[in-house]
Amino acid sequence: MEPKTIKKIGVLTSGGDSPGMNAAIRAAVRAGFYYNLEMFGIYRGYEGMIQDDIKRLDSKNIAHVLERGGTFLKSARSTEFKTPEGRKKAYENLKSHGIDALVVIGGDGSLTGAHLFFQEFGIPSIGLPGTIDNDLSGTDSTIGFDTACNTAIEAIDKIRDTATSHDRLFFVEVMGRDAGFIAINAGIGSAAAAILIPEKKMPIEHLVEKLKIRSKAKKSSNIVIVAEGGKSGGAGEIAEKVKKFLPSYDIKVTILGHLQRGGAPSSFDRLLASKLGVAAVEGLLQGKYDVMAGLINNKVVYTPIKKAIVDDKSVDEEDFRIAKILST
Amino acid sequence: MEPKTIKKIGVLTSGGDSPGMNAAIRAAVRAGFYYNLEMFGIYRGYEGMIQDDIKRLDSKNIAHVLERGGTFLKSARSTEFKTPEGRKKAYENLKSHGIDALVVIGGDGSLTGAHLFFQEFGIPSIGLPGTIDNDLSGTDSTIGFDTACNTAIEAIDKIRDTATSHDRLFFVEVMGRDAGFIAINAGIGSAAAAILIPEKKMPIEHLVEKLKIRSKAKKSSNIVIVAEGGKSGGAGEIAEKVKKFLPSYDIKVTILGHLQRGGAPSSFDRLLASKLGVAAVEGLLQGKYDVMAGLINNKVVYTPIKKAIVDDKSVDEEDFRIAKILST
Amino acid sequence: MEPKTIKKIGVLTSGGDSPGMNAAIRAAVRAGFYYNLEMFGIYRGYEGMIQDDIKRLDSKNIAHVLERGGTFLKSARSTEFKTPEGRKKAYENLKSHGIDALVVIGGDGSLTGAHLFFQEFGIPSIGLPGTIDNDLSGTDSTIGFDTACNTAIEAIDKIRDTATSHDRLFFVEVMGRDAGFIAINAGIGSAAAAILIPEKKMPIEHLVEKLKIRSKAKKSSNIVIVAEGGKSGGAGEIAEKVKKFLPSYDIKVTILGHLQRGGAPSSFDRLLASKLGVAAVEGLLQGKYDVMAGLINNKVVYTPIKKAIVDDKSVDEEDFRIAKILST
Amino acid sequence: MEPKTIKKIGVLTSGGDSPGMNAAIRAAVRAGFYYNLEMFGIYRGYEGMIQDDIKRLDSKNIAHVLERGGTFLKSARSTEFKTPEGRKKAYENLKSHGIDALVVIGGDGSLTGAHLFFQEFGIPSIGLPGTIDNDLSGTDSTIGFDTACNTAIEAIDKIRDTATSHDRLFFVEVMGRDAGFIAINAGIGSAAAAILIPEKKMPIEHLVEKLKIRSKAKKSSNIVIVAEGGKSGGAGEIAEKVKKFLPSYDIKVTILGHLQRGGAPSSFDRLLASKLGVAAVEGLLQGKYDVMAGLINNKVVYTPIKKAIVDDKSVDEEDFRIAKILST
Repeated sequence: MEPKTIKKIGVLTSGGDSPGMNAAIRAAVRAGFYYNLEMFGIYRGYEGMIQDDIKRLDSKNIAHVLERGGTFLKSARSTEFKTPEGRKKAYENLKSHGIDALVVIGGDGSLTGAHLFFQEFGIPSIGLPGTIDNDLSGTDSTIGFDTACNTAIEAIDKIRDTATSHDRLFFVEVMGRDAGFIAINAGIGSAAAAILIPEKKMPIEHLVEKLKIRSKAKKSSNIVIVAEGGKSGGAGEIAEKVKKFLPSYDIKVTILGHLQRGGAPSSFDRLLASKLGVAAVEGLLQGKYDVMAGLINNKVVYTPIKKAIVDDKSVDEEDFRIAKILST
Repeated sequence: MEPKTIKKIGVLTSGGDSPGMNAAIRAAVRAGFYYNLEMFGIYRGYEGMIQDDIKRLDSKNIAHVLERGGTFLKSARSTEFKTPEGRKKAYENLKSHGIDALVVIGGDGSLTGAHLFFQEFGIPSIGLPGTIDNDLSGTDSTIGFDTACNTAIEAIDKIRDTATSHDRLFFVEVMGRDAGFIAINAGIGSAAAAILIPEKKMPIEHLVEKLKIRSKAKKSSNIVIVAEGGKSGGAGEIAEKVKKFLPSYDIKVTILGHLQRGGAPSSFDRLLASKLGVAAVEGLLQGKYDVMAGLINNKVVYTPIKKAIVDDKSVDEEDFRIAKILST
Repeated sequence: MEPKTIKKIGVLTSGGDSPGMNAAIRAAVRAGFYYNLEMFGIYRGYEGMIQDDIKRLDSKNIAHVLERGGTFLKSARSTEFKTPEGRKKAYENLKSHGIDALVVIGGDGSLTGAHLFFQEFGIPSIGLPGTIDNDLSGTDSTIGFDTACNTAIEAIDKIRDTATSHDRLFFVEVMGRDAGFIAINAGIGSAAAAILIPEKKMPIEHLVEKLKIRSKAKKSSNIVIVAEGGKSGGAGEIAEKVKKFLPSYDIKVTILGHLQRGGAPSSFDRLLASKLGVAAVEGLLQGKYDVMAGLINNKVVYTPIKKAIVDDKSVDEEDFRIAKILST
Repeated sequence: MEPKTIKKIGVLTSGGDSPGMNAAIRAAVRAGFYYNLEMFGIYRGYEGMIQDDIKRLDSKNIAHVLERGGTFLKSARSTEFKTPEGRKKAYENLKSHGIDALVVIGGDGSLTGAHLFFQEFGIPSIGLPGTIDNDLSGTDSTIGFDTACNTAIEAIDKIRDTATSHDRLFFVEVMGRDAGFIAINAGIGSAAAAILIPEKKMPIEHLVEKLKIRSKAKKSSNIVIVAEGGKSGGAGEIAEKVKKFLPSYDIKVTILGHLQRGGAPSSFDRLLASKLGVAAVEGLLQGKYDVMAGLINNKVVYTPIKKAIVDDKSVDEEDFRIAKILST
């Protein structure tokens, strides 16, 4: 597309927050300054766009945010943005500020919003993959995923201390929505006895069999990682089922929960977010609209949002194979 | 009591594990070596004493354990030790190794076992307060409590990132059994909106009122800390009740769970455990039996076990007052 | 002293920053609000007082600061405050804002400033011990000391991984100015082979002898903790000397440096700072002037500043004895 | 090459240790068991091979090592292995144990040893890139690099607390030998004012100019990252030079040092090490000898060792560009 003249860019975060969002905002804003653009923060996502919660950002706004979890622009759900009237209002607010283009950081729902908005009003926009779930195509890793994996293994390391001290069986539930990425990484990274993920059904009998074999081999601790979105149920349900087969086992359940969403971003996520924040602004200046900027094989790639959000990304078969070899 | 001649000391950990137990074992063993004693590890608590899971320890056994969570001597429940026959068997195993005295590290149940054993067989023993719950008298702080508080606030710091990004209300449940020590410390330390602990009933209406006032003051995040043993129910139940009063709030619940028991011990717990490990061995050599060694005002104090386990320790009223002032 | 009417309190941090200063500021400000006072932030310590860098604080200013290292009020050295003219200017600025009293958070230099200011102008002031060095009397622990000890042992835990993998001898220098508190805690907490602190001279020959004995006992790693202010020199110098005696040893030096000053405060420091922040405001309202608020045996104690800064606090002999037993 | 029959594999770590080495050892050993091989640990690298410090490993040896920094097989320098006699002795020891093949984990020196050994004695061997420096070709990332970057940014985050509180200029020296990978990642990840790396000369005047501009823009903290192997000197030297130009600046230097080598490996390094450990054993079984297994674009790639150790890997120009945009 022929690049439009862009002088003012609005940045927003939407959907569940993820570590590195602040680093991405900062990078986009700083890149904007580098190209002599005016940069605006749209607070509380699409809701703030509708309610005109929009402020011009200067370098003070983005000082000391890179290293912080969450998003200083805040995030919120917006039911109103799902209506044509809501989006109209949002569009008018953008116009009143003279905002020419958008950088939208979030998961598939957030990018869908950007896509729709572009279709309706022609506002150039680039999405950035900001979610701990890693469930977006068009990028090897989403912003926040690496940090969430680190948070998960650090928590599981602590649980293992207790599991080992008591010869216990722990079921630990990790996040990831319908994708098993955090589960597979955390599972391999914490020497899990088994990993249950949405992409792959494991009959309860197989799991029980595996645990029995390990018990005979006198493995002193057993940690089973369960992804939250699995069809076999959450960690609590699966633990209940296993309990029936192995009544003598000392079984505990821990659901890691929201602490996986927060925390200072990892080095990897800071770098990823920084590169993508710059890529978002440079992409807009080059006329790349309605796309998501991602990093594939360490190169910036712009993928049409419509393609990025069709979630055909699932855990690599090779990773399963490795997990199986290592947990035998 | 006239000190008996002690040449061989057995060390065991029992009950729920806590960070710093390894540091305490190491200190006791190293103090034993200093006084030219033979030191034995009794594995898996009283159960291992009955099953003769007892090994002589040398300095290699205690290398690189100080900094690790859990207990390398392992811990286990023993129903058999609750019977006179079980204790008889345990006693005979000790005698067969020539073990003259015991150091028992654990919570009230573990110390009760040591007390009973001393009454029945006259085996000199000293208990050390090893529990994250801080619910033992005779010491300002139990081994593991400080680490558990740090683990809790680090997790809550992460949750706050998310709470703030979304203007959410989080109910976070921390451990502590029937005592609110972790809750009050984590609550003050994480700027909680409210702290619900077993020692103090807070009517749900008061809590709702407090949250409403904060909402008006536009506090951007609200974290309510709930101690696990509270009469008003766990974090899930309380969240349900509050939800009825505040249906528009975006409410989430996280139960920190067992990760609070693990992890590398804090500097405070390493020091406490090191001092008490030495105090246990020196106390035995001085004829102090059937007591718990604790640290009060940074001095070693030996309290009769019977007195230490009568749990009259509860959260300081002054700490409440501070919490109230700070959360207004 | 008969309490004066106090309506406006200024808070400042001065000297080297320490983790927990923000928590102390927040607690003081929040306590001020609780007692319906106006609270002012004096930025950049005494320098800002002279330059009238003073702003009224509201609850937004102290949101999300409790958990952050450093001091949002900033700190600076002021040579001008050491002159009568400088202090006069500072006093006039306070008067122009109507500030009736001061809370000064910092080390001995900072408290000396407060004392002098009180003597000259009669401005009621309370000092809080904010320093990682723990070198102030009138409190068991200074704000930031516990966090610095945790930072030190976490760093040493990492160094030990490498020391053990290579059978190396490491000299690790920790902070503490003229006091060995961080060194002794970090030394006991990291199973150090030896601890060199300013309070206690250890001839180089003794150290060498100790290392040789350990070498014979096949201890796989040797970490020697050196306090920065020791008379025998820093870690680098001592390592050089030891090298001459033990030329075959693989010796490395790490100076932990300023990272010990930063980081999120520990649970202990958050609690200590919160209690002392409240105590500062309540003390002022009760007419306690020219004193430092500290926590002794977990009770708030107000000590005349003149007495608190006379540094007769040194590492407990008992701690040495423990360190010696544990490193044999 | 036609695969030889391999039944017994020896694993060793050599050179500087890096976080994830234990995870790589574990993965190789576990993969060996999966393929019904006997696995041997060669302790203390090539030195242990010469001194016959070789033990058969069972599953107990590799329990609870994945999450630990360093290498439980230990590492050592061997001057003797550099002589034909030394290598002959090493070869004979391998033969006496019936060891058919080697997995060598380490940096370029270690891999060079494996290459030479293969040339001389035809012992099939596969190298794994174990170094924090990321200076090996044939893999996107070396084992330990990601963890070292995380350790660096966590330390710098703490230093920033202090830098910001005092408006200070900090020079922080990070590791990386002759490569600037840690420096560029840590620099982008910590919002550094400037990054000095061996691959790129920055005249001192440019640096001073940059710092002056930032000073005018009232940036409250300035952190300059210096890679250890830079031609302009270490952090201390550069700080001295800058001091001459900017005498009024409050300048501090911190050399992060060996703590960057230790610590629990990150999720990324655990996964990388696990995959490569399996790839080493599977590669040997498939007849891939004298190669290094690496991960490029998330696929296992076997590169001739001779090619992998020719260090033509240097920091990506694009990363510089990003760093420049973000630090303006």
